[in-house]
Amino acid sequence: MATVGDIAVSAFVNILLWFVFLAAFAFMRIQPVNDRVYFPKLYIAAGRKNPRSGEANWVWKHFSLNVGSWLGAFLGWMPAALRMSQADIIRHAGLDSAIYLRIYILGLKIFVPMTFLALLILIPVNIFGGTLFHLTSKIVSSDIDKLSISNVGDQSPRLWVHITMAYLFTIWTCYVLYVEYDNVAFMRLHFLASQSRSVDQFSVVVRNVPSVGGHSISESVENFFRRNHPDHYLSHQAVYNANKFAKLVKKKERLQNWLDYNQLKFERNPERRPTRKIGFLGLWGERVDSISYYEETIDELEKKIASERQRILKDPKAVLPVAFVTFDSRWAAAVCAQTQQSKNPTQWLTERAPEPRDVYWQNLAIPFVSLSIRRLVISLLVFALIFFYMIPIAFVQSLANLEGLEKVAPFLRPVIELKLIKSIIQGYIPGLALKVFLYILPSVLLIMSKMEGYFSLSSLERRAASKYYYFMLVNVFLGSIITGTAFEQLYSFLHQSPTQIPKTIGLAIPMKATFFMSYIMADGWTGIAFEILRLKSLVIYHLKNMFIVKTERDREKAMDPGSFELPETLPTLELYFLLGLVYAVVTPVLLPFILVFFAFAYAVYRHQIINVYNQEYESAGAFWPHVHTRIIGSLLISQVLLFGLLSVKKAPYTTLLIVLPVLTLWFHKYCKGRFEPAFRRYPLEEAMEKDTVEKAAEPNLNLRAYLADAYLHPIFHSFQDEEMGEV
Amino acid sequence: MATVGDIAVSAFVNILLWFVFLAAFAFMRIQPVNDRVYFPKLYIAAGRKNPRSGEANWVWKHFSLNVGSWLGAFLGWMPAALRMSQADIIRHAGLDSAIYLRIYILGLKIFVPMTFLALLILIPVNIFGGTLFHLTSKIVSSDIDKLSISNVGDQSPRLWVHITMAYLFTIWTCYVLYVEYDNVAFMRLHFLASQSRSVDQFSVVVRNVPSVGGHSISESVENFFRRNHPDHYLSHQAVYNANKFAKLVKKKERLQNWLDYNQLKFERNPERRPTRKIGFLGLWGERVDSISYYEETIDELEKKIASERQRILKDPKAVLPVAFVTFDSRWAAAVCAQTQQSKNPTQWLTERAPEPRDVYWQNLAIPFVSLSIRRLVISLLVFALIFFYMIPIAFVQSLANLEGLEKVAPFLRPVIELKLIKSIIQGYIPGLALKVFLYILPSVLLIMSKMEGYFSLSSLERRAASKYYYFMLVNVFLGSIITGTAFEQLYSFLHQSPTQIPKTIGLAIPMKATFFMSYIMADGWTGIAFEILRLKSLVIYHLKNMFIVKTERDREKAMDPGSFELPETLPTLELYFLLGLVYAVVTPVLLPFILVFFAFAYAVYRHQIINVYNQEYESAGAFWPHVHTRIIGSLLISQVLLFGLLSVKKAPYTTLLIVLPVLTLWFHKYCKGRFEPAFRRYPLEEAMEKDTVEKAAEPNLNLRAYLADAYLHPIFHSFQDEEMGEV
Repeated sequence: MATVGDIAVSAFVNILLWFVFLAAFAFMRIQPVNDRVYFPKLYIAAGRKNPRSGEANWVWKHFSLNVGSWLGAFLGWMPAALRMSQADIIRHAGLDSAIYLRIYILGLKIFVPMTFLALLILIPVNIFGGTLFHLTSKIVSSDIDKLSISNVGDQSPRLWVHITMAYLFTIWTCYVLYVEYDNVAFMRLHFLASQSRSVDQFSVVVRNVPSVGGHSISESVENFFRRNHPDHYLSHQAVYNANKFAKLVKKKERLQNWLDYNQLKFERNPERRPTRKIGFLGLWGERVDSISYYEETIDELEKKIASERQRILKDPKAVLPVAFVTFDSRWAAAVCAQTQQSKNPTQWLTERAPEPRDVYWQNLAIPFVSLSIRRLVISLLVFALIFFYMIPIAFVQSLANLEGLEKVAPFLRPVIELKLIKSIIQGYIPGLALKVFLYILPSVLLIMSKMEGYFSLSSLERRAASKYYYFMLVNVFLGSIITGTAFEQLYSFLHQSPTQIPKTIGLAIPMKATFFMSYIMADGWTGIAFEILRLKSLVIYHLKNMFIVKTERDREKAMDPGSFELPETLPTLELYFLLGLVYAVVTPVLLPFILVFFAFAYAVYRHQIINVYNQEYESAGAFWPHVHTRIIGSLLISQVLLFGLLSVKKAPYTTLLIVLPVLTLWFHKYCKGRFEPAFRRYPLEEAMEKDTVEKAAEPNLNLRAYLADAYLHPIFHSFQDEEMGEV
Repeated sequence: MATVGDIAVSAFVNILLWFVFLAAFAFMRIQPVNDRVYFPKLYIAAGRKNPRSGEANWVWKHFSLNVGSWLGAFLGWMPAALRMSQADIIRHAGLDSAIYLRIYILGLKIFVPMTFLALLILIPVNIFGGTLFHLTSKIVSSDIDKLSISNVGDQSPRLWVHITMAYLFTIWTCYVLYVEYDNVAFMRLHFLASQSRSVDQFSVVVRNVPSVGGHSISESVENFFRRNHPDHYLSHQAVYNANKFAKLVKKKERLQNWLDYNQLKFERNPERRPTRKIGFLGLWGERVDSISYYEETIDELEKKIASERQRILKDPKAVLPVAFVTFDSRWAAAVCAQTQQSKNPTQWLTERAPEPRDVYWQNLAIPFVSLSIRRLVISLLVFALIFFYMIPIAFVQSLANLEGLEKVAPFLRPVIELKLIKSIIQGYIPGLALKVFLYILPSVLLIMSKMEGYFSLSSLERRAASKYYYFMLVNVFLGSIITGTAFEQLYSFLHQSPTQIPKTIGLAIPMKATFFMSYIMADGWTGIAFEILRLKSLVIYHLKNMFIVKTERDREKAMDPGSFELPETLPTLELYFLLGLVYAVVTPVLLPFILVFFAFAYAVYRHQIINVYNQEYESAGAFWPHVHTRIIGSLLISQVLLFGLLSVKKAPYTTLLIVLPVLTLWFHKYCKGRFEPAFRRYPLEEAMEKDTVEKAAEPNLNLRAYLADAYLHPIFHSFQDEEMGEV
């Protein structure tokens, strides 16, 4: 177990890193050459120009060494970030971003009063509880434990304070959650109501179009909707199986990059035309002139692309049994999306169309049976991933137990025994190791979600987020608690009755507080400061700049604004809620660490949303029900664990705690009924209102023309762009 | 534990009772005086007349002592009942009845091949497994155990036969379930398609109508639907708070019965006018002439009723925030029922209107918040009911343990030691005691469901059925297994790890086979024979006949056809599926008992549906998803318990069983997606088809007139009837 000293060292290291990252950030962002890395959103949304693009001096144009502006930039971004109003953020970056930021505020709203109450009341009660060493457990406890519930003696009547606090905290959390859900639902409805006309409002995706003998997919769709929505059906757009086409286009883009790179090389060094070998990866084979080689290959590829395009448009088999159906009013589209069309519930499945930029085209054609098999397979895979990933993490965790490490590698003993190293290992490494493990995970989970067959990017991200959350719950939260103690308690744990599990975990909770403190500092403080530095984007941008960027348009393309990665940030955030709620009653000293995280991360993400991120789609806060549900789940977990802990401590009135989960579950059900439909369905009242207003304002609107090419496969778009470009 | 001898005695007693009940039934039903008790459905549906109503001889008119026809009637009803085709049953008694009967056929389809396989393969394997007394458990086992899996030695390689069988049985059950679900869904759609025009097809219930200042409920409804469904809205009918009115009408009916009774008494005995005291329950107070007393009171009440009616019609506060909204087409009604109307998801809640005879009027006005509180309270109550009901049952169960009984009441020892009594107590009483306990339960659960606020009788019954099922699962199934062994194993049970629970229950399963055999005989054989006897209806009918029936119309009213009580019969049936699936691999000798139940009950219920029951509403098989889900649940339980049992026996390859529940769950999810929408929503394709056909056939149909009074509060109907009668 880590002592207060270890925590202090961990805090020192983290705060040092925090300073380093922020200073680096301040230095980097004032360099004009990095302008597109740190302000891409402003380039995209506000038409920003590089402030020194007019400079003649090359150095002066690209670098700034002004120490004053550096110091000013150190924390100067913060007030600027906090100044923008919510309405402006919605206009600037969309509703998703604004609602995402509200999660941090929600965290502050929940935990600030909790922290005050806990520090004022619980800590004194714990300190004067005073009998830690009467505990039967033989695990050595740190000084932090003196501030926690572990310090209160078994059967102590003081424990009623903790029970009362559990009630207060639950009621407060539920109250804040309710108000916030109400708020977000209102924002969403208001946003949808004030949204200007967009194609997705009039469109519906229909999947599993049955193939009726003799009719093409297009004809079937036309007939079906003419028959069943005679007054409102407008037209439909077929979806093509353009995956091969997309591959060719991608290949061409890659070759184009190589061509650009070689041309640039030649320009800079005109004496020598670049050459390459034509074999695998350019490693062997005949040596040819690179520029003409690429030009020829691209020409060939373009011919292939053109013929493939012809094939797709002519071949009836390239039309997938999916279509985007458009209606003459929002009302009719809402009706079609929400109703069951066919007698066979697996055919003619309708759903609201996602925005065109939100469509994940590859998944549109998956039939019903395959979908349900895919989901089975993926859920098994996720299960395996969650439970077998534990093994390496448990190993790293065991390193934090120095005695274990010394046994495994006795030759390290002299190094480990150094006080500083010891503290770093115990306080810092467990958190960092976890973080590295978790780094590649979101991409894996996103791929898994794609295989599940959801066809909008927003729902893919939400699915990935929920997988990641379960992963964190089992591996970061439970894994850290159980494997940590498992090395000491495994034997006794396997021989306990079922009611014993929450007791065992509950008992381990206060002992793990120090671990989670260092975790919060590493992940929540330093990690966020690292996020604002955007090291990865910085490196990639400059690499691209060096090798392929020729024109201003290329530079635009090389700029990678990114987004707040929902699949990763949402579960992380939810984990902080879980930690806060679980430790609020047990070890309240943990709460200030969480508060610092929420406050700092709020400022950072606000800054990033204003200056950097460019959201790829707008789901109007569709992720909120997930956030709400997870916080409710965290509440339940905290209640069950507290119950376990208190029943081990034989606290009087422990049974009073049974009421809490029941009430919490009921609250959840109530909120689900009260608010969730607003996130799932488009109310007819709303649709009718917008239709009426629009009809009055623009009686001659030609909707058919407006909707004609709304859901054209993006590949054709890029093709059109190029044709336009060539003309 | 009961021995084979006990089972034989139990079988003897049950078969004896079975004969007695069937003989009594045969005797009773050929008596003309009982004709209306045993053939009410024929009176209602087929216009049956009493076959001897023309007879002059009073005895001959009312009784039949022909031994030949008695013998003929003994099992003669069976072929007659089995002869009618399914299409005829649908016409005669509705689709619900026909689908209900299919559950028994489903049972036979699942268990007949299983029984053959099990008897041919498993029983020989079990008999030659041969090492029961090597078991560590010290509980004395009966001879039945020699035929069960208990007889196969631990770690025996023969156990792979059982694992294979578990796979075969699961696959077979799923296959049959799939085919049947497909079938039932098709029947439902076909039935809905061929249904003639009915008001519920054009109607929607809208609840939680918000009160907008200044507007009455009626005006709000009118405005809202005119605005949001402008092309299709036709009209609406308000719902009145007529509960007080209903009370008065009921009181009047009660008094009318007393008046009839007294008038009849006076007619039979004209010398003495009947008198009564006017105090509480006629026990004290002034003595008055009964006939004139009741006549006066009824007169008074009628005035009150008239004024109450006036008050309801005039008072705007008597209009509830609920309405039945009607549309000009089935398409529009389907659209309105399936979509979200209002921006506030708790207002303007629309649902398909139930048939008028299916509406449970009292529950229509419950607001959203109250609904969710009610559901919380009721689920807590159901939980308490399920878990505290166990105490008396456990007590009765413990009586079956004779040693325990002797300890409790040593003076009974001489009686108990008699062999016959001993066998009766051990073999018969546990089943009977349970049955009596369960007798009053459905009514309690139905009341609870009513408090939950569902507003159609069919959904109320389904809710009550599901509560009852959980009750049976915990108390009959688990309760019998665990409390039975709990007396021997409680201590060791409390000290086991969580994975141990299925092991403990699984181990107890084969030991409880004899108990369930006698339960099946008592409940499934004798109980069903008792059902066909209709003793309760017989007694009540004759009592009514004696005291109040004056005219032929009164006699019609006194006839109580009843119905197959879904809330009670459905869970019972589902319990048999559970028993069959759990014991199929473990103790296959139980299967023939279940087969006999399904076959006999099928014949009985077919007979009852044709001759007796009069279904109150038609839900077009809406209960099927419940049946399907419960059978899947039973499969899962059987798999988990088998896994527990086999892992105790350390069977090789036990881990192979883990695949089964995963596949079963996936199958369930697939079926849910594939079939359930057909039971929840009315497809637009279907609605449009019917609309089109109807428009072509009857272009001048006046729908507005047809729908005008469709959903008038039933109280007003009865009032109208009476006014018509008086004129």
